Amino acid sequence: MSFLQIGSKYPLPRRFKDCTYSVWTEFVDLVTTHKPLNLGQGFPDYPAFDFVPSILAQISDSKNDLIHQYTRGFGHPRLVNVLSKLYSKLINRSINPFTEILITCGAYEAIHSAISGLIDTGDEVVIMEPYYDCYEPIVRLFGGIPRFIALKNIDVNSEKDAFSSKSWQLNRNELENIFNEKTKLIILNTPHNPTGKVFIREELEMIGNLCKKYNVVCLSDEVYEWLVYKPAVHVRIASLPGMWERTLTIGSAGKTFSVTGWKCGWLYGPDYLIKNASIAHQNNIYTYCTPIQEALAICFEKEIPKLDSPDCYFQNLSIKLLPKRDAFMKTLINTGFKPTIPDAGYFVVADWSKQSSKIDLSSEKDVEEDYKFAKWMTKNVKLLGIPPSAFYSKEHKNLASHLIRFCFFKKDETLNQARDILTNWKKSLDGCKL
Amino acid sequence: MSFLQIGSKYPLPRRFKDCTYSVWTEFVDLVTTHKPLNLGQGFPDYPAFDFVPSILAQISDSKNDLIHQYTRGFGHPRLVNVLSKLYSKLINRSINPFTEILITCGAYEAIHSAISGLIDTGDEVVIMEPYYDCYEPIVRLFGGIPRFIALKNIDVNSEKDAFSSKSWQLNRNELENIFNEKTKLIILNTPHNPTGKVFIREELEMIGNLCKKYNVVCLSDEVYEWLVYKPAVHVRIASLPGMWERTLTIGSAGKTFSVTGWKCGWLYGPDYLIKNASIAHQNNIYTYCTPIQEALAICFEKEIPKLDSPDCYFQNLSIKLLPKRDAFMKTLINTGFKPTIPDAGYFVVADWSKQSSKIDLSSEKDVEEDYKFAKWMTKNVKLLGIPPSAFYSKEHKNLASHLIRFCFFKKDETLNQARDILTNWKKSLDGCKL
Repeated sequence: MSFLQIGSKYPLPRRFKDCTYSVWTEFVDLVTTHKPLNLGQGFPDYPAFDFVPSILAQISDSKNDLIHQYTRGFGHPRLVNVLSKLYSKLINRSINPFTEILITCGAYEAIHSAISGLIDTGDEVVIMEPYYDCYEPIVRLFGGIPRFIALKNIDVNSEKDAFSSKSWQLNRNELENIFNEKTKLIILNTPHNPTGKVFIREELEMIGNLCKKYNVVCLSDEVYEWLVYKPAVHVRIASLPGMWERTLTIGSAGKTFSVTGWKCGWLYGPDYLIKNASIAHQNNIYTYCTPIQEALAICFEKEIPKLDSPDCYFQNLSIKLLPKRDAFMKTLINTGFKPTIPDAGYFVVADWSKQSSKIDLSSEKDVEEDYKFAKWMTKNVKLLGIPPSAFYSKEHKNLASHLIRFCFFKKDETLNQARDILTNWKKSLDGCKL
Repeated sequence: MSFLQIGSKYPLPRRFKDCTYSVWTEFVDLVTTHKPLNLGQGFPDYPAFDFVPSILAQISDSKNDLIHQYTRGFGHPRLVNVLSKLYSKLINRSINPFTEILITCGAYEAIHSAISGLIDTGDEVVIMEPYYDCYEPIVRLFGGIPRFIALKNIDVNSEKDAFSSKSWQLNRNELENIFNEKTKLIILNTPHNPTGKVFIREELEMIGNLCKKYNVVCLSDEVYEWLVYKPAVHVRIASLPGMWERTLTIGSAGKTFSVTGWKCGWLYGPDYLIKNASIAHQNNIYTYCTPIQEALAICFEKEIPKLDSPDCYFQNLSIKLLPKRDAFMKTLINTGFKPTIPDAGYFVVADWSKQSSKIDLSSEKDVEEDYKFAKWMTKNVKLLGIPPSAFYSKEHKNLASHLIRFCFFKKDETLNQARDILTNWKKSLDGCKL
């Protein structure tokens, strides 16, 4: 019997029908083949993390025998205790570390366990576009039906050099029309990736009121909670009246301490929602890595007393990133892009319509224009960004046709190289037109 | 609206119907309440790991910027490379590190991803009892139908002081009768937890021939591969003729290097089966912790050249554990238990029938006799073991009614305490009878 015949008895289960493709796999391969300057994935290309790794080093070498063995499945006691202290303060209510917090393998597993523990076949889930690309396949995996609603740039026709991330808005009527008796969950992402939008209180109230009206749970992905540029302010939807009892909030150590490779995330919320997610988690990974959880607990213990000071790592990060954001926005504007200036996070979505008439993308065979452009840039300009239609449902991919996403959490040297690459490209395009 | 009303809109999805209970949660609580000597969960209570943690410390502090950021989703390149080197040698075929290996969050996520990527609603999965307790709920979670077959102690009526783990056998007719056209997967666990049985070649051939006849995949959980007491020899079923193409094998860093808290596992097998599991993994945690994977790669690189020497950590572990096993078997025999002497692993299943007439378990309210005994022991004798009926399906729990499982991967001091506790208990029982 040949391998092929054997394989054919083992097709993917039906629930994976729409989940086989990941933009990351394809674009990571492009990096290997074409060696572009990589502004694709969201992580720093330099040690941005300060004291954090040395704490992992110290505890690894310590004489504490148990630090290398299994810990409590729903979260290492030291870590859930410190997170309860942090978030109790931030949302102004007392959070029980043992029943209202769950530690996961990254925000990714937090999303998986929350959805797995809530969604039954036929339940509807409201997802805002553009979205973190795992939301859709995970909802489908558990038989959920995604209902998409796009954030729309209400300023799209303005003559300005750049957009504000505040211009990306939900239409109230559209949102009201999408909620119904089958709706079980809405996935909120604030601060929002990739637009950099920080939802304001009024927007969160609009969402919260619909959740209350239809008794819907809000899964609030707040992994960029510390990466907010003043004067924008992050509001936690769980802190709004009547929302704690229906909200699961997601946090991430990777984003908080700039160590994405540590893959530790968490959920917090009322005990009955945490319990559902915990049962999913218990049948998935059971427990997360102990030394990583211990090290993170110490990092938090160190920073929490400084919470309101600019010295605090959490506060400091956006202050350090601001000049990078501003320099890169200047680069984009000067080279013919129209960026959405993010109020948070380290991504920027830029519109390249102005250049489209000067470029011949016919060598690229993708369906979506933004895929063609991102691949063409990678191969010909040697700069890699991500096509944002990957973050839209099939029916709305056209909304991203002239956009590209870049990450600017990179060393200044990398951002300067990006500036030079784009400046030269602009020159050559202008030359072509003459 | 009260919390209760809100919660009631959010019952667990139907697929978790049979998965809400975990023996671990209950017995970990008993530890907290009654503070017994804990021979329950399977990990050392002392630093058994030698050089391993110091490697994590070294790499954490290194100047390698990328060691704390996301790595390749299907496995850190350095780790998959070294695992390919190791297993290519062990199963005598060349394993492609990038298409035939998947790194997971522990063996637990390996089991989850393998089953999630293979089992569709209505598929049958053969599970041998006693089993690692997550197999059953994970199969049900994805709509699979578990078909149970118990290993039976063919020597059960012997007059000897102890049983051999070789006496726990599959009945050939029963096994043949359970396979049919709907069978998609069999889960094998060798070396076997908790009996300590090491399946011999002839037994693996019997299983393999049925897999070939019915075109069934074998998920072989071999996490105790290095914990085998001579003269027993671990045979990898993937190395049998015609079995590579239908086998996914599971390994564990926690078991290999005695660091269960590192929670890193892996699957290896043919590309088309790894691909299915990878798609499940990609929609679950996406990628595992980078510094842990880097540290493990270095540990393997260090040990592989010594593979055939007793110096090698892998070989050395069972040599170090053997005196612990033998001392604890002596304790059990001397105190009225009839243990199954394990050929591998660090668990022992012991029969307590001989004492049953002398103990009054009526204070315990559980249904299963072994649960009553384990809880009674915890509260009254202050020694905690695990009731093995937790590792049997509902219909076969009676097979474990007079058994208890202990872990002997503990410091000598702990094992001596266990000896003293059990010796005193025996004396008091004998006293009662007079």
